[in-house]
Amino acid sequence: MKKLVARIYEIEQGQNQVVLSEKDAQELSLEVFDRVCLRTNGNSITAMVGHSESFVKPGEILLFYEAAKNLKAYPGQEVGIEPAQKPPSIDYIRNKLDGKTLSNSQIGEIVSDLMSEKLSTAELSAFVSAVHIRGLSPHEISSLANAIFKSGNHLSWKSRRIASMHSIGGVAGDRSTMLVVPIIASAGILIPKTVTRAISSASGTADAMEVLAPVSLTTPEIKKVVENTGGCIVWGGAVDLAVADDRLIKIRNPLRLDPEGLVLSSILAKKKAEGVRHVLIDVPLGRGAKVEDMDKARFLAQNFKNIGSHLGLNVKCIISDGATPLLRTVGPALEARAVLEILKGGGGAALAEKSCIIAGMLISMADGVSEEKGIELAKRQLGSGKALKKMREIISAQGGNPDVKPEEIEIGGVTKSFYAAEDCTVSHVDNRNLAMISRALGAPVNKKAGVILACERGDRLKRGRELFRLVTTDKAKLDFAECRLAQFPLIQMKQIILDKI
Amino acid sequence: MKKLVARIYEIEQGQNQVVLSEKDAQELSLEVFDRVCLRTNGNSITAMVGHSESFVKPGEILLFYEAAKNLKAYPGQEVGIEPAQKPPSIDYIRNKLDGKTLSNSQIGEIVSDLMSEKLSTAELSAFVSAVHIRGLSPHEISSLANAIFKSGNHLSWKSRRIASMHSIGGVAGDRSTMLVVPIIASAGILIPKTVTRAISSASGTADAMEVLAPVSLTTPEIKKVVENTGGCIVWGGAVDLAVADDRLIKIRNPLRLDPEGLVLSSILAKKKAEGVRHVLIDVPLGRGAKVEDMDKARFLAQNFKNIGSHLGLNVKCIISDGATPLLRTVGPALEARAVLEILKGGGGAALAEKSCIIAGMLISMADGVSEEKGIELAKRQLGSGKALKKMREIISAQGGNPDVKPEEIEIGGVTKSFYAAEDCTVSHVDNRNLAMISRALGAPVNKKAGVILACERGDRLKRGRELFRLVTTDKAKLDFAECRLAQFPLIQMKQIILDKI
Repeated sequence: MKKLVARIYEIEQGQNQVVLSEKDAQELSLEVFDRVCLRTNGNSITAMVGHSESFVKPGEILLFYEAAKNLKAYPGQEVGIEPAQKPPSIDYIRNKLDGKTLSNSQIGEIVSDLMSEKLSTAELSAFVSAVHIRGLSPHEISSLANAIFKSGNHLSWKSRRIASMHSIGGVAGDRSTMLVVPIIASAGILIPKTVTRAISSASGTADAMEVLAPVSLTTPEIKKVVENTGGCIVWGGAVDLAVADDRLIKIRNPLRLDPEGLVLSSILAKKKAEGVRHVLIDVPLGRGAKVEDMDKARFLAQNFKNIGSHLGLNVKCIISDGATPLLRTVGPALEARAVLEILKGGGGAALAEKSCIIAGMLISMADGVSEEKGIELAKRQLGSGKALKKMREIISAQGGNPDVKPEEIEIGGVTKSFYAAEDCTVSHVDNRNLAMISRALGAPVNKKAGVILACERGDRLKRGRELFRLVTTDKAKLDFAECRLAQFPLIQMKQIILDKI
Repeated sequence: MKKLVARIYEIEQGQNQVVLSEKDAQELSLEVFDRVCLRTNGNSITAMVGHSESFVKPGEILLFYEAAKNLKAYPGQEVGIEPAQKPPSIDYIRNKLDGKTLSNSQIGEIVSDLMSEKLSTAELSAFVSAVHIRGLSPHEISSLANAIFKSGNHLSWKSRRIASMHSIGGVAGDRSTMLVVPIIASAGILIPKTVTRAISSASGTADAMEVLAPVSLTTPEIKKVVENTGGCIVWGGAVDLAVADDRLIKIRNPLRLDPEGLVLSSILAKKKAEGVRHVLIDVPLGRGAKVEDMDKARFLAQNFKNIGSHLGLNVKCIISDGATPLLRTVGPALEARAVLEILKGGGGAALAEKSCIIAGMLISMADGVSEEKGIELAKRQLGSGKALKKMREIISAQGGNPDVKPEEIEIGGVTKSFYAAEDCTVSHVDNRNLAMISRALGAPVNKKAGVILACERGDRLKRGRELFRLVTTDKAKLDFAECRLAQFPLIQMKQIILDKI
């Protein structure tokens, strides 16, 4: 085995990557993107090869961040190198491209090779593309969900009264998680909820919750919070549940590839990793939401139930109206404010109603009462202030200030309002454009940025009435967002004459 | 626009890639794999983003080789950076995944975004996967071939008596190009042939020709060689014909994805870039070759003709026997020796016959004579020594030694012969395993390595007769290759009893 001397660059590449001199690469017959096996005393990894004409000297090997970390290599160390065989999982990906069904063990091998960095980004992209076109059978989806589940950490609990929820998303201001968790926990059911940051939206639940309390907790910290309060709202990315999923998601995002099999296995693997028994899945439907067709929504819901039961989860689904924002405010701080106000008994009727239905159904599943009884109890927990009290306990247990008042949550001071140019009726408020403009204002990184809507679908407005307000902390961002409004309008008015030619 | 200070690393990444500090990436809302637009005075490029926790300091931007080269950036230079829009070509790739047909301009945009590094490796892999599954219409293939053609340099010639050939490959010892070129050129027809290095085989035509003369010529050098001698055999990689193809091929290789549409457009684009009118395509068929089914071979051949004519090329195809090696020697130096011997009138009957048929058909196409007449002329050029004389002219014009004798070509001195263990009949000589073992011996990088076959299919051999000899310059390589023989046998014997249970 040839020996080379390690140089280490702490640059993340998203995969195990190393660079050789042209001379060494030629001697080992290694092309760019070929795989090598690297060895030090006691450790070995598979990595992808790059070439360098002058930057890497013959006799050297440059290891990027992931390769150095996984090999536990240090600068100057001798590293053994030899060409690696292509893993058989490449053939399974090729089979999926050719329309074949994969076995449980083949899917397990793809996921474990993904985890051990034996598959390149290009090969994983081919897998995602193949799944997008060929689909996955229910059996393949269960296999994939199980393999993704096994790829990461998982939580476990003694109680059997333990529930969770997930919304497949796409609706601005849908912070139902931040209401369902305290309602459920105040009813004595455990709900160890992990949430995500925004991918393409203005704010994920993790971003909004972070305004109230830290969300990057370790596994032991989460256990403590849930054992003390009955619930938590923490960022899943910090606890490495279902890690195999993260790499697939990075590949899916740019092409907006959400093949149903990957969506189902990704979500259910994460619920299983939370260690829960009862799961409520929310499928928002309608213009601008991720699902725009009722038949597709029903089919997806049925698949969640079936595959959930293969995984030992008791799953129910709701199909909700995903065409309009659920809050009149968008952006992390603005949403956190609105949630606290609802818990105190004010405003946000649509979001409160939706959250009580989800919470009520979960109570019914966990406790065997009727859905009506469950929803009634959920409303009582919210109306009586018990949910607010529980939320303050959770905020405190996660390390936030339990006494925070909605009006104390800081929002941006650089604002601009927009007004109706004539008498009009609001026909549509656009979820996707709301996300686009909020991001232009700096959300979710800038938690104080966002949009305040002053109207909703169906409103009849007089000329000069406020329509919405842009909020940020930076004049340049405000100008940039204003420029983009022409291309991404937030509000559409009802028109009788659509065009004149 | 934010300004960062350039640091440059001469490491090839296969795409425009830069690395930012976590802090700057967060401030610009840039995830790993997001695109940015970079600007210096007068230059701008699109690049993919990576993050670094500690290696890149806030305020710095690290540019890898391609990004620095394309931006013409120097260390310490100020570089403007802003998030880039996703190119519309991502939507076209998405459309192809969804089974839609792409227009001429959409395919043109995918190729031009590929060239300007706006598409990531993952996105290109999705495109290749989509083409593999969905296929391409003849119109799409023509569009793609044209776009690939336009992506690189091309040669042009005044003569209309100008021809070329291409074999889709997979047959060991198929050096017909090295015979067809001097035969054709000696008959007064121009043949500016570009060839490739081995990808998975023991030796490409470029590797074998390089034993006789330099093959990395510039475009003006090629023009001069062809104008003086009528032909050339040069490495296509050195003259950047159809460059868009090179990046697609890097993605296709690991997954062995050879979708017909990409194969057709890739080959025809390169022929068009050679500036020729008449093209003969060789489709080897049979066990171990790239095409194993006669119907598929006929279909492919018909498509070459049809799409060639869209591109203004006069194309004919032959379907040849691809099941057995065409020479008894495999490896660059061994093959170069064999070619010289055939040109001198000795040995290699199968390869000589095939080359005369190809050359004869090209003569018939270029000069309007019958195929019989063409083949007759080709045989005369070979038999009379005119082709040998022309080959020496070409070798000399490309910078090699025109007087080289076959026996002067050096081959490895570390050899081992293998013998028949009992009386037997040879039922199969395996092309793919020949390539595998030759590569284990060091070919094609080590030009002196390879395999000498001492038998062919159908031979009846007595116990103790030599079967083949392994040739290399390095004892360790010989041992390694010998180890692999058990897994990759070169020769199969006829058996009556196949198994006993």
